[in-house]
Amino acid sequence: MKKFNVCILGASGYTGAELIRLLHGHPQASISHLTASRHVGRALAEVFPHLGEIADLELSSSDPSLIPDDTDVVFAALPHGASAKLIEEIYERDVRIIDLGADFRLMEGTYRDWYGDHPCAHLLENAVYGIPELSAARISEAKLVANPGCYPTSSILPLAPLLKNGLVETERIIIDSKSGASGAGRNPSLDLHFCEISEGMKAYKVGEHRHTPEIEQGLSDFLGDKVEVVFTPHLIPISRGILSTIYVNLSDSHGTRELLDVLGQFYRNSPFVRILPEGTFPNTSSVRGSNFCDIGARANPEGKTAIIVCAIDNLVKGASGQAIQNMNIMLDLPESLGLESAPLYP
Amino acid sequence: MKKFNVCILGASGYTGAELIRLLHGHPQASISHLTASRHVGRALAEVFPHLGEIADLELSSSDPSLIPDDTDVVFAALPHGASAKLIEEIYERDVRIIDLGADFRLMEGTYRDWYGDHPCAHLLENAVYGIPELSAARISEAKLVANPGCYPTSSILPLAPLLKNGLVETERIIIDSKSGASGAGRNPSLDLHFCEISEGMKAYKVGEHRHTPEIEQGLSDFLGDKVEVVFTPHLIPISRGILSTIYVNLSDSHGTRELLDVLGQFYRNSPFVRILPEGTFPNTSSVRGSNFCDIGARANPEGKTAIIVCAIDNLVKGASGQAIQNMNIMLDLPESLGLESAPLYP
Amino acid sequence: MKKFNVCILGASGYTGAELIRLLHGHPQASISHLTASRHVGRALAEVFPHLGEIADLELSSSDPSLIPDDTDVVFAALPHGASAKLIEEIYERDVRIIDLGADFRLMEGTYRDWYGDHPCAHLLENAVYGIPELSAARISEAKLVANPGCYPTSSILPLAPLLKNGLVETERIIIDSKSGASGAGRNPSLDLHFCEISEGMKAYKVGEHRHTPEIEQGLSDFLGDKVEVVFTPHLIPISRGILSTIYVNLSDSHGTRELLDVLGQFYRNSPFVRILPEGTFPNTSSVRGSNFCDIGARANPEGKTAIIVCAIDNLVKGASGQAIQNMNIMLDLPESLGLESAPLYP
Amino acid sequence: MKKFNVCILGASGYTGAELIRLLHGHPQASISHLTASRHVGRALAEVFPHLGEIADLELSSSDPSLIPDDTDVVFAALPHGASAKLIEEIYERDVRIIDLGADFRLMEGTYRDWYGDHPCAHLLENAVYGIPELSAARISEAKLVANPGCYPTSSILPLAPLLKNGLVETERIIIDSKSGASGAGRNPSLDLHFCEISEGMKAYKVGEHRHTPEIEQGLSDFLGDKVEVVFTPHLIPISRGILSTIYVNLSDSHGTRELLDVLGQFYRNSPFVRILPEGTFPNTSSVRGSNFCDIGARANPEGKTAIIVCAIDNLVKGASGQAIQNMNIMLDLPESLGLESAPLYP
Repeated sequence: MKKFNVCILGASGYTGAELIRLLHGHPQASISHLTASRHVGRALAEVFPHLGEIADLELSSSDPSLIPDDTDVVFAALPHGASAKLIEEIYERDVRIIDLGADFRLMEGTYRDWYGDHPCAHLLENAVYGIPELSAARISEAKLVANPGCYPTSSILPLAPLLKNGLVETERIIIDSKSGASGAGRNPSLDLHFCEISEGMKAYKVGEHRHTPEIEQGLSDFLGDKVEVVFTPHLIPISRGILSTIYVNLSDSHGTRELLDVLGQFYRNSPFVRILPEGTFPNTSSVRGSNFCDIGARANPEGKTAIIVCAIDNLVKGASGQAIQNMNIMLDLPESLGLESAPLYP
Repeated sequence: MKKFNVCILGASGYTGAELIRLLHGHPQASISHLTASRHVGRALAEVFPHLGEIADLELSSSDPSLIPDDTDVVFAALPHGASAKLIEEIYERDVRIIDLGADFRLMEGTYRDWYGDHPCAHLLENAVYGIPELSAARISEAKLVANPGCYPTSSILPLAPLLKNGLVETERIIIDSKSGASGAGRNPSLDLHFCEISEGMKAYKVGEHRHTPEIEQGLSDFLGDKVEVVFTPHLIPISRGILSTIYVNLSDSHGTRELLDVLGQFYRNSPFVRILPEGTFPNTSSVRGSNFCDIGARANPEGKTAIIVCAIDNLVKGASGQAIQNMNIMLDLPESLGLESAPLYP
Repeated sequence: MKKFNVCILGASGYTGAELIRLLHGHPQASISHLTASRHVGRALAEVFPHLGEIADLELSSSDPSLIPDDTDVVFAALPHGASAKLIEEIYERDVRIIDLGADFRLMEGTYRDWYGDHPCAHLLENAVYGIPELSAARISEAKLVANPGCYPTSSILPLAPLLKNGLVETERIIIDSKSGASGAGRNPSLDLHFCEISEGMKAYKVGEHRHTPEIEQGLSDFLGDKVEVVFTPHLIPISRGILSTIYVNLSDSHGTRELLDVLGQFYRNSPFVRILPEGTFPNTSSVRGSNFCDIGARANPEGKTAIIVCAIDNLVKGASGQAIQNMNIMLDLPESLGLESAPLYP
Repeated sequence: MKKFNVCILGASGYTGAELIRLLHGHPQASISHLTASRHVGRALAEVFPHLGEIADLELSSSDPSLIPDDTDVVFAALPHGASAKLIEEIYERDVRIIDLGADFRLMEGTYRDWYGDHPCAHLLENAVYGIPELSAARISEAKLVANPGCYPTSSILPLAPLLKNGLVETERIIIDSKSGASGAGRNPSLDLHFCEISEGMKAYKVGEHRHTPEIEQGLSDFLGDKVEVVFTPHLIPISRGILSTIYVNLSDSHGTRELLDVLGQFYRNSPFVRILPEGTFPNTSSVRGSNFCDIGARANPEGKTAIIVCAIDNLVKGASGQAIQNMNIMLDLPESLGLESAPLYP
């Protein structure tokens, strides 16, 4: 069985560690190179003791010339800006590239509005925004995939089929998202101090989170029509998990059963999207550690509005798991290869 | 200094324990009688070890004839139904009654729709729905106060002034609330098992929570006009705290500054409502253990919609603290007596 | 590749769910029958939503006559007493049995002292106490394996090699263990209510926990000499994980290096025991969801005493993972088959 | 009623914030000056939103010349080293000084062994090690009190009476302590990142924590004889609370009843030490937010060894609460003034 050689740029963060965990269980991937701006030269197990006996690797500097020639796939798990620059340097090589950062997700103008000038705008047109359930064909032919953000994944997956089928109005969609702390990365800061988060909760970046334009663009591109959302992220004292509660106006009178049927039909061949039975709603602890995306929905009695709830593990379906799902598609492997393990509960 | 004798019916739950904690620090209240359906005859410190050396009391049966004659105030912290029946039996006594349960919050028809037949409907017209910041005059003359639910408190306080001043439309108000587990009480159940809650989050009773009609009635009564809300509660792995994120349509174009000014002006004499500076939003850990209600708001750039966030401690401002605030007003004591302690952070 | 048919008695608890999760990833096991005293007739995914799309099975009653004839392995994840009775009924069948409960762990006299009369004492002599790292040969030939308790596993694994090599005295061994809440099972009780556990910690059953005789017997049997321990369990607000901090007197002067070398040498062929480098100590979050057992040690400067720290996931190496490891050995499969996945961190 | 003017050096950390919280409820203290190395010139409520409407103060630079002349009491809540230098500069003023750091707790030689050269060793002989239950007389006359560390407080209080009465041997005392994260302070670091702590636990500084000599010196000084301890701290995913489980050899045969009687008798006039009934043991959630120290004990059946468990809130009895208790004694106020509030549970 062919093994593909994988390189991870930025292996010392949470999404990097999660890529290593998942690839360790992937039968056709072999990690051959890891980089990290800190910890260069240290053994992986020193930085991540949980990976002792799992992956006997060393962290290299981020110098792209050190990436082995026989690399088949490069995952970039780097801060925005840094990612684009490194990818530009290796773009001409015969590799597939999956960027877990924000650099290739937005159109140039939108990127500039929210992040500033783009470091290598000429590559933007080649990048495919990679939600496998929506764009498998384009992903399979892409050289560069922009792996979606965690909040957008939990927002776009439940909304896309309902918009596409004309059940939901494109204006005044409200997305109230709650996330665990790992979504903010591993760099220490007062905001991420245990005592600041434990036994508390808060909204943050109210009306100004950078995932707002990503959600709007992702939905608009898929629908072929402009979609507007109000998006509010919250920080919840758990490590993993995003729960997005979405409030929509229905275009006509539609019942709960119809909403669930449309979702179920749309995702009937998607191994990772689970549409829950009527009357039940997702819990992030039911998807922890897995690539599942659980969705529940309920229309109001008049069928004029609906509430849709979506749960994912932000580090898996919201980051590293989805990246590997994209890799599988790019390499023409079964979509769920290496991602079949059951959620860790409790 | 006169001491008022206080009796607590249902002292073995979380709101009962919280009443005892707060009354222990109240200079003009003295707990003279505690009842509990379980633990009858046991010392309080056996049931609640944290109250050792704090309150040397015993738990009595719920027989109303045992309530001492010199009781000035009765708090009922009982399940709905049980509460109304006991209150009916003592109603003719010369006492003030504050019911922390749901029995006297709703009009009879609404009660029947959501809870079933009312156990003593004839007392309903005497009950005052007790949000002190909105109804102090009526509370001061009431014999029976219906202490508001935790979710309604966190919803009505931020919305009432904005509705009253005509800034917010009365339709399509979306209230996305997140609560800690103590709001569900102290009775063991699988849903409240530590492992079922820890490291997870979920929406529950989507579109069917009994606090929905309470919020709508509370706001409609205050405004004198019908208000409609969509309310979704969520369970978050903390013990104390409610965060309500509220999405409204503005009636005209209004800016953030204007929203905050109206709120600040309305609550300028309310010691427990803190309107946060522009650009900041509340965290439940900043109100923990206190009677504070923290509110932040932001209008969108066009001034057409706004997001309002409110944090309270569900056991204090959402239950026992507000009950004592009501007691203070009923007894003509300073509103904040016994409730001045600072939040416990972290 | 041959698939072995597996039956799980008591599938609705945490160890049952964990068996299903792990067996789902086992290439040579196929779950053919699940029983539960509650939820009979319900689909597994109703009881455990995280297992939706993972295992399409139904829960049967615990009637042993319903266990399919072609069953190869029976796991019993039942309360003590119930387990022994069911096992007695199926013992004559051509199956291998692994009991995750306490019924077959202790000698009859000790069992009586701590649990009462044994329900089927005549089977006791056939049962093998199954710590694979210590008793692989006997396990491979056993028909009935008594899977060790979580606390004993975390105590015996670090101590056995040091006692066997004569480095540690057999008296006055102090084991201070801290456990997450899942070790207490899934039945609701006030002690396991989220609010009673969150943000707190306590010792429990001080001087009287039933795992004390199991630890002593396990170590004494292995050493061939009487070993005495003081064991104190603690409840910590996490779901999974046991950390045992062990204080021993050294028999002579021994250094940290020597202790670690003896441990490393003893477990050099054990895929799940990781001896940490000098100066580092385990964290339960580094073993979560995995079958690893991490051990660190430090002797005092004089070499007279030592502190040994051991971390396991109580539901995996402390229960279901170890049970599958035992199954692998009984079926002559590779010891780590189906148990290779990396820990879930963070 | 006279108000004493209080200054807090280092008000932007957790112990600083806790001093402000507690002093807010103290009837005879008035905070007149706050310093912080960061945040100079900012309003307190910006740095600590929970203190909005509680304390309308600004943070000043740490320049000692800015401390108002009419200051009666100075609390230093600073890192070791920094504390001693500032205290030296103000020592000649007519103020009482309470240092919450480590600078004045140890004898010079011991300090040097564990921290390095002492910044102002000449003041050491004037400092009184301030455990109020053990040294009230000396504290009442002290100008400079060294407030004990959190771990030492939880270790010395339960052991001192048992050693003094000759029940416990002075050698081979094992102290296994578990602490919440706030004990490590508010400075961000990877070790204190939410995701690194949540759902995990670990021992740290095994055999080398700086509180070891403080415990030994505190006990030895009190007993007048050399006491030796083995001390292991652990980090537990809670914010507040220390639980110390202590293993001792008894000097003769002693029963549980006798141990508890000696403790109860010793602390009969100490308002904050609660000796729990036989068969019960402390939980940190029963002391949270309060100055209580809860102690339980059990001797083994032969009366040769015992397990003693002690719980405190590390920020209150382990730091700021004890500091205020010391202040009360120094100012000849009632020992428990401002510290009477009940624990916050749940």
